[in-house]
Amino acid sequence: MIAVLKQGTTEKQLENLSSWLRTQGLDVHISKGSAHTVVGLIGDTSKIDEELLESLDIVDSVKRISEPFKSANRKFHPDDSIIKVANTSVGGDSFTIIAGPCSVESEAQVMEIAKSVKRSGATMLRGGAFKPRTSPYDFQGLKADGIEILLEAKKETGLPIVTEIMNANHLPLFEKVDVIQVGARNMQNFELLKELGKTNKTILLKRGLANTLKEFLMSAEYIMAGGNENIILCERGIRTFETYTRNTLDLSAVPMLKELTHLPIIIDPSHATGVARLVKPMAMAAAACGADGLMIEVHNDPKHALCDGAQSLTPEAFDDVTRAVRRILMAVKEL
Amino acid sequence: MIAVLKQGTTEKQLENLSSWLRTQGLDVHISKGSAHTVVGLIGDTSKIDEELLESLDIVDSVKRISEPFKSANRKFHPDDSIIKVANTSVGGDSFTIIAGPCSVESEAQVMEIAKSVKRSGATMLRGGAFKPRTSPYDFQGLKADGIEILLEAKKETGLPIVTEIMNANHLPLFEKVDVIQVGARNMQNFELLKELGKTNKTILLKRGLANTLKEFLMSAEYIMAGGNENIILCERGIRTFETYTRNTLDLSAVPMLKELTHLPIIIDPSHATGVARLVKPMAMAAAACGADGLMIEVHNDPKHALCDGAQSLTPEAFDDVTRAVRRILMAVKEL
Amino acid sequence: MIAVLKQGTTEKQLENLSSWLRTQGLDVHISKGSAHTVVGLIGDTSKIDEELLESLDIVDSVKRISEPFKSANRKFHPDDSIIKVANTSVGGDSFTIIAGPCSVESEAQVMEIAKSVKRSGATMLRGGAFKPRTSPYDFQGLKADGIEILLEAKKETGLPIVTEIMNANHLPLFEKVDVIQVGARNMQNFELLKELGKTNKTILLKRGLANTLKEFLMSAEYIMAGGNENIILCERGIRTFETYTRNTLDLSAVPMLKELTHLPIIIDPSHATGVARLVKPMAMAAAACGADGLMIEVHNDPKHALCDGAQSLTPEAFDDVTRAVRRILMAVKEL
Amino acid sequence: MIAVLKQGTTEKQLENLSSWLRTQGLDVHISKGSAHTVVGLIGDTSKIDEELLESLDIVDSVKRISEPFKSANRKFHPDDSIIKVANTSVGGDSFTIIAGPCSVESEAQVMEIAKSVKRSGATMLRGGAFKPRTSPYDFQGLKADGIEILLEAKKETGLPIVTEIMNANHLPLFEKVDVIQVGARNMQNFELLKELGKTNKTILLKRGLANTLKEFLMSAEYIMAGGNENIILCERGIRTFETYTRNTLDLSAVPMLKELTHLPIIIDPSHATGVARLVKPMAMAAAACGADGLMIEVHNDPKHALCDGAQSLTPEAFDDVTRAVRRILMAVKEL
Repeated sequence: MIAVLKQGTTEKQLENLSSWLRTQGLDVHISKGSAHTVVGLIGDTSKIDEELLESLDIVDSVKRISEPFKSANRKFHPDDSIIKVANTSVGGDSFTIIAGPCSVESEAQVMEIAKSVKRSGATMLRGGAFKPRTSPYDFQGLKADGIEILLEAKKETGLPIVTEIMNANHLPLFEKVDVIQVGARNMQNFELLKELGKTNKTILLKRGLANTLKEFLMSAEYIMAGGNENIILCERGIRTFETYTRNTLDLSAVPMLKELTHLPIIIDPSHATGVARLVKPMAMAAAACGADGLMIEVHNDPKHALCDGAQSLTPEAFDDVTRAVRRILMAVKEL
Repeated sequence: MIAVLKQGTTEKQLENLSSWLRTQGLDVHISKGSAHTVVGLIGDTSKIDEELLESLDIVDSVKRISEPFKSANRKFHPDDSIIKVANTSVGGDSFTIIAGPCSVESEAQVMEIAKSVKRSGATMLRGGAFKPRTSPYDFQGLKADGIEILLEAKKETGLPIVTEIMNANHLPLFEKVDVIQVGARNMQNFELLKELGKTNKTILLKRGLANTLKEFLMSAEYIMAGGNENIILCERGIRTFETYTRNTLDLSAVPMLKELTHLPIIIDPSHATGVARLVKPMAMAAAACGADGLMIEVHNDPKHALCDGAQSLTPEAFDDVTRAVRRILMAVKEL
Repeated sequence: MIAVLKQGTTEKQLENLSSWLRTQGLDVHISKGSAHTVVGLIGDTSKIDEELLESLDIVDSVKRISEPFKSANRKFHPDDSIIKVANTSVGGDSFTIIAGPCSVESEAQVMEIAKSVKRSGATMLRGGAFKPRTSPYDFQGLKADGIEILLEAKKETGLPIVTEIMNANHLPLFEKVDVIQVGARNMQNFELLKELGKTNKTILLKRGLANTLKEFLMSAEYIMAGGNENIILCERGIRTFETYTRNTLDLSAVPMLKELTHLPIIIDPSHATGVARLVKPMAMAAAACGADGLMIEVHNDPKHALCDGAQSLTPEAFDDVTRAVRRILMAVKEL
Repeated sequence: MIAVLKQGTTEKQLENLSSWLRTQGLDVHISKGSAHTVVGLIGDTSKIDEELLESLDIVDSVKRISEPFKSANRKFHPDDSIIKVANTSVGGDSFTIIAGPCSVESEAQVMEIAKSVKRSGATMLRGGAFKPRTSPYDFQGLKADGIEILLEAKKETGLPIVTEIMNANHLPLFEKVDVIQVGARNMQNFELLKELGKTNKTILLKRGLANTLKEFLMSAEYIMAGGNENIILCERGIRTFETYTRNTLDLSAVPMLKELTHLPIIIDPSHATGVARLVKPMAMAAAACGADGLMIEVHNDPKHALCDGAQSLTPEAFDDVTRAVRRILMAVKEL
């Protein structure tokens, strides 16, 4: 870590700073330029509070050289993490396809979708039981009943299930859930992350709407710091000024995260774009740039769905997506 | 609410949509243009799920005409809400100044700052006991002990106290806290909002880093939907590409929110800019454009503070800010 | 186009608005809801100034139903545009690979790169002669001499050349240039666009750093309105808060633009990411999601290049990228 | 300037880099940490191409310590620049109020507005003769005739005039114009900036929609590098995800720019918010935080204006704004 000091910093101030840094267990290396003095902090700086240091009157700016995340850092864990989930695994050579409805609506719905996406090659079933909604007046999910329905579908199809948690107090309800999802809006709900760090459940952590990759990894680090290293990262679009798509899918996050961390990274093209027609090309692109998997919304039920179609893909369209993705994956493997 | 249908929508589809909307208790008004058909939804559309409607295959786009928030909406509550907090109140003709350290570090620290900011005109004392930190390795706050210290300072100075909650399970610890703060990263922690809605505590709700004003008000609505209408909104900067400041303070949010809602709005220039030197001009600007108050970080303790100064203002600098702000407020009142 | 009127609009005001709209050649369709009145504008609204309409006191908001671009609109030109460029073409079944150095530095440099990228399958040669630089003190390019060097390389290799224009007065220098690039910072330099609209040169138009797809297409429309329909669109990353990458590559722009326009769309992964290591995965992703081509920076000259490598790819790395991209393209074609 | 090298950089590579940097006239200071080597560049680094340096394979990241702008830098010019404009001046103790219509429509319109805004205390008259419009089908301005009308109004009222240039070839038409405006979309039209640098006209430079303050100052530097130091900076809102306002006014730019540069800074609340009702509070806030002036759109002509009101203020509303602003300025001066 480097701290650039302001012009006019006195010797006394520099000495105060240095001796404080040494009490934090760091070596201090001072280099005086014509105008600025640069202080190098050598040692384990992961516990140094960057914002605090930057806020000192004599400090112009601070630059981290080593990353503040450790457990998630590929430097200290060069091999890909492979996360076992029931009968399947995420990361390494596997390509995970998580599919299912946005919200669990009924057992019939989930069962039909589950069977269908399994036939198309999905490796896990997703479905929202607790739904984070912007409006308190929108449907909030079937909650415990929704989880029961997912477990029924698991029993029937053998597909491990993924569903979102919004409150650590609900953890007992997630006992038989295979993968617990933390939604984008809870990516920095640190209390929830800490609780999940105490479990041994696999966590699917979604990137926040306006969070950097560094913050994303720091949130993974929260869970890992508690002892739970079973984490799957999920990029689901960030918020920009563009309005044709709901969010902007940041696919460069895939190779960038691959470099920074050993954790697997999957892509959610459904939420990232908000447009069913864009799911297929974005799923293909994700497969091409090295993602470890996809999470895709699939809806069935042409009779009961409002009019004839929702943003989610139909089972037929999903089947088409999986075939296209497999073709891309084969091409990538031959390289 | 208006839904614009895609070209090629069939009569059958239009009929299906209309009959479904009618089952939701709405009147439907259809207007056919040369290329597009526009469906007007008349009635209480606040319970209509905009995203769901937009996701239908036949729907090109949806536009809300009336706002989706009701309890927070000024249309249904034209007068400013005035929130009573112990011996003071927020909103209306009052100008609230909340000041104190970022983190509660010790009783001596808090006591000294509390007395000092009270002399300068602060109307409430703030201090972080539970600290949301990006890194699990950064200081997480004194927790329950921190709240005890704040309560001691309240006893001594009479200043009501404001402190952040991160977990609804901690609510019993906040029993004597006057104002419970919800931080930017928890603005859409809907489970927390719901729990706070069941209390009668005053909630200071901070805008999320990348949240629109509409989402901000919908989060207030979550609390209000539970029956708790004691809400103070706080703009604390949004995330943009600019790097000289930590965030970009959105002061136009003040008059815009004044128009949309009856809830009081205060400004946090310390977090918004991340630069102590910008706190004074931004505090003055906030007072000039109609904010109901300020929340400012103040640090004391020149001996123990790292080197000689932190991002927070010193008590002297804070005193200077409050005098400048009062001058602006007087000018505004004379208009 | 729909205008939603504010509550309290009088009959007189509504009448004034309607009669003014009729003088603009539009049919007006009025629909009164419980609280709001909605005015539908039927006819050719592409000449209606949306901002002006929105700025009227009685207008709450305006919503375009049909797109404001016409020549670029796929609705009026369903087939892909195929742009002929010398011996090659862009769009349709072709996949264009434009490669070359960021800046033209010397004839030897350009000649060596040109031969090398041709061997690897590049279909055009790029190189900056006029360089838009943030700082007036940075290298501004070889200008006319740079173009001469590119033309020499074209003579030698047969590769058509692409180079950036910054000033319409320089057009005579671009007489033999095959494709004239308009950089991101000039995407809304409307005077330049108008001048290019008067030529019959092929224009490669880059998306601005913070421009929506609609604005991007409106800038293409500026050129097309002048009579020049030879336009290649290029997505090169947008500006967000993320800092690991220079910009955020918006690949969902590819299928979205394919839907909105008949013009070909290529991707520049070099500028979008600013990280050489990310060029290959992003190029593969671009090929997978339907882009019509790529624009990639290639540098040669290991001896003279500073130390041993620049952000641009080496010819060897570029060759590797093209092979990977071809593999993806084959997989896509088999679908 | 500091370059942090990657782990694994060899001695040979470090030596190559150092010797190259020395040929650029810099002293090189090398500091080896446990994992990373840090290279300090001492001397005039303003001509070092930061991006180029960052793009080297062995370089992890680069950090500028001194700012890349020189002529605009307050460090080398501690006193406020005061820009003389005809009979008035901008910067220092003056508070500039530039007012007038968005577009020049007719002599009668401009004359009436000019007289009215002068009575209310405006110190300059603005009006668009050349209009940058997103759509080629929108009104593009009266051009040369528009400038003539402005000059007539100047003759009548004595108010210096401000109008926008879009093409350096139009400069002869601007001979009698007092202040030439460069719009947000042309902030990085470097060719235009260079041409304006060769003149001695006062330039009002608007910040781009998605440009950092550093880039803003580098664009001022382009003009100053040519010898023209008569520059007024204008913040007019940046592009964010918020939709209630057209842009997000970044008022913290005022004190931040005051610190970085000696050039005067004015605020355009009309374009920043796009909402006439927000102009007054934002103008007051701008005055409170130290802006050197305002640029406000004023429209007259209740009969001919579409219906009864446009986004611009009426002369009466503008008069109210100026009175409020003067009250704030008096309060600020008394501090």
